Amino acid sequence: MRNIEIVGYGTFIPENIVKFGNQKRHRIAKDDSTSQIDMAVEAIKKALKNSNLNIEDIDCIVSASAVCAQLIPCTASLIHERIAKGTNIPAIDINTTCTSFISALDIMSYLIDAGRYNKVLIVSSEKASVGLNENQKESFELFADGACAMIFQKSNDPKKGIIYSTQQTWSEGVHATEIRGGGNLLPGMEYSQEKRADYLFDMQGKEVLLLAARKLPKFFKNMFKETGLTISDIDMVVPHQASRALVLIMKKLGVPFEKYIDIVDDYGNMVSVSVPFAFCKALDEGKIKKGNTVILTGTAAGLTANAIILQI
Amino acid sequence: MRNIEIVGYGTFIPENIVKFGNQKRHRIAKDDSTSQIDMAVEAIKKALKNSNLNIEDIDCIVSASAVCAQLIPCTASLIHERIAKGTNIPAIDINTTCTSFISALDIMSYLIDAGRYNKVLIVSSEKASVGLNENQKESFELFADGACAMIFQKSNDPKKGIIYSTQQTWSEGVHATEIRGGGNLLPGMEYSQEKRADYLFDMQGKEVLLLAARKLPKFFKNMFKETGLTISDIDMVVPHQASRALVLIMKKLGVPFEKYIDIVDDYGNMVSVSVPFAFCKALDEGKIKKGNTVILTGTAAGLTANAIILQI
Repeated sequence: MRNIEIVGYGTFIPENIVKFGNQKRHRIAKDDSTSQIDMAVEAIKKALKNSNLNIEDIDCIVSASAVCAQLIPCTASLIHERIAKGTNIPAIDINTTCTSFISALDIMSYLIDAGRYNKVLIVSSEKASVGLNENQKESFELFADGACAMIFQKSNDPKKGIIYSTQQTWSEGVHATEIRGGGNLLPGMEYSQEKRADYLFDMQGKEVLLLAARKLPKFFKNMFKETGLTISDIDMVVPHQASRALVLIMKKLGVPFEKYIDIVDDYGNMVSVSVPFAFCKALDEGKIKKGNTVILTGTAAGLTANAIILQI
Repeated sequence: MRNIEIVGYGTFIPENIVKFGNQKRHRIAKDDSTSQIDMAVEAIKKALKNSNLNIEDIDCIVSASAVCAQLIPCTASLIHERIAKGTNIPAIDINTTCTSFISALDIMSYLIDAGRYNKVLIVSSEKASVGLNENQKESFELFADGACAMIFQKSNDPKKGIIYSTQQTWSEGVHATEIRGGGNLLPGMEYSQEKRADYLFDMQGKEVLLLAARKLPKFFKNMFKETGLTISDIDMVVPHQASRALVLIMKKLGVPFEKYIDIVDDYGNMVSVSVPFAFCKALDEGKIKKGNTVILTGTAAGLTANAIILQI
């Protein structure tokens, strides 16, 4: 048990909505210049206000997003400039793609528990709409933009904290979800209209789903085996909002309908933002309450799977 | 004290050398397709061999590089595919630009110490030559390519481990070292010949140097104050090989010439690879020996400064 607790949180979701049938996607409008960093800053401001804290009270800023804002420097330092300029607060990026927030919380909980940092701000922010390919219907209609920031601190309550966490990476699926261009392997300078698809989001949804469906049952079973818990001990599962197939995966994992958050219809897949946003929304709506035992989980491009069992 | 120890390490440096006066830079030749991932893989293979380990013995793979290989997925999972496909080993990126290796070691030492992971592989790999701007002489002549992998584990020797670590970020300098294009703010799809410079490395060397010179003395003084150590207690300082101004910075910090590693003339600045490579080279050459107390330190784009005091 690593004794940590939520101090506060904030979210930013663009007002602009694009609809695909009954599916709503919040996406920054084409004529709106709001950036990935702007969204992170808005979410952080709300998180600080919600926590009744100033930025000077924060001991570490972690950016937990899949896609970087620039190739250099790290996204956290670009966020730092906007909210913490003139301070010494360390800024770090932690990235496991869609589950970056879970990984960051998992990792930083050790540093909080050990007393290295007291208050840690973790922010996920994604402007997924920038990189969608209109020729790939499935992903084009799935993703959405947003940001979510949460502040965690050491807890004096022995009941509050992370009782279990795990991560596994199955690179059989590494090319099933990609943006191949933009980084070091296929730099921006090599862009051409012919290579356009390489610079856009490319997802083989069926391949991801099949691999996840094959791997996750053992992953979940192992979590329950190692903790001695069953699904009846869990108040709510907050899964990554990967796609509308979430309902199938949850069924396969034995998570009853009333025990997981599914906001895919209204919010789509917000990459790394999905898990913390769904978590904060459930806290706001009272679907998750003080004293609850919650699982944050999901699969990410890689393919990586994460799970945390958190008593809040 | 977090009790960790080095199990083994490996490096990869391209054979091709470009010379600028007396300055040598190892850079992958234009007609050589060796990638950032290829270099990481070579360094890891050597590290495993040097450690007498198989990949199955590794509990976590951390990619600690400044520039991502692709925008999605994270670089660690692309490395995982080449060395750990079929395993469940978690793959994570940790990024603070040039000091990513120090940050990754600092952070992961808490997880090793807490028993989460026993053996952690940290790899830094940079193909900096891809993004250099021939019109910016200073940076064009400074950077070099390479990779370095080190494996750490829990130590049973109470004298071995990290006795102090710190990170500070001073975002006043966030735009002094950049590759603005390629990520979410200025995507590859917006590339044009006119914007070419935005997609290449851009460094205001003098600005970085002045900020570092202004901030680092207090940063170092604080480290010695908090640990009760002086420079005479330190056997060797392994600084980031930021530039030829390293000698000026070390002088300003009161580190005598014989107590720091300076390989800028022969290897230039290899971004995140500089610190672990200089460290491993010093271990190979016996400049750092068992029982030594070593400082790994440096400044990174951000501007971020890191320091670890490690008893090896």
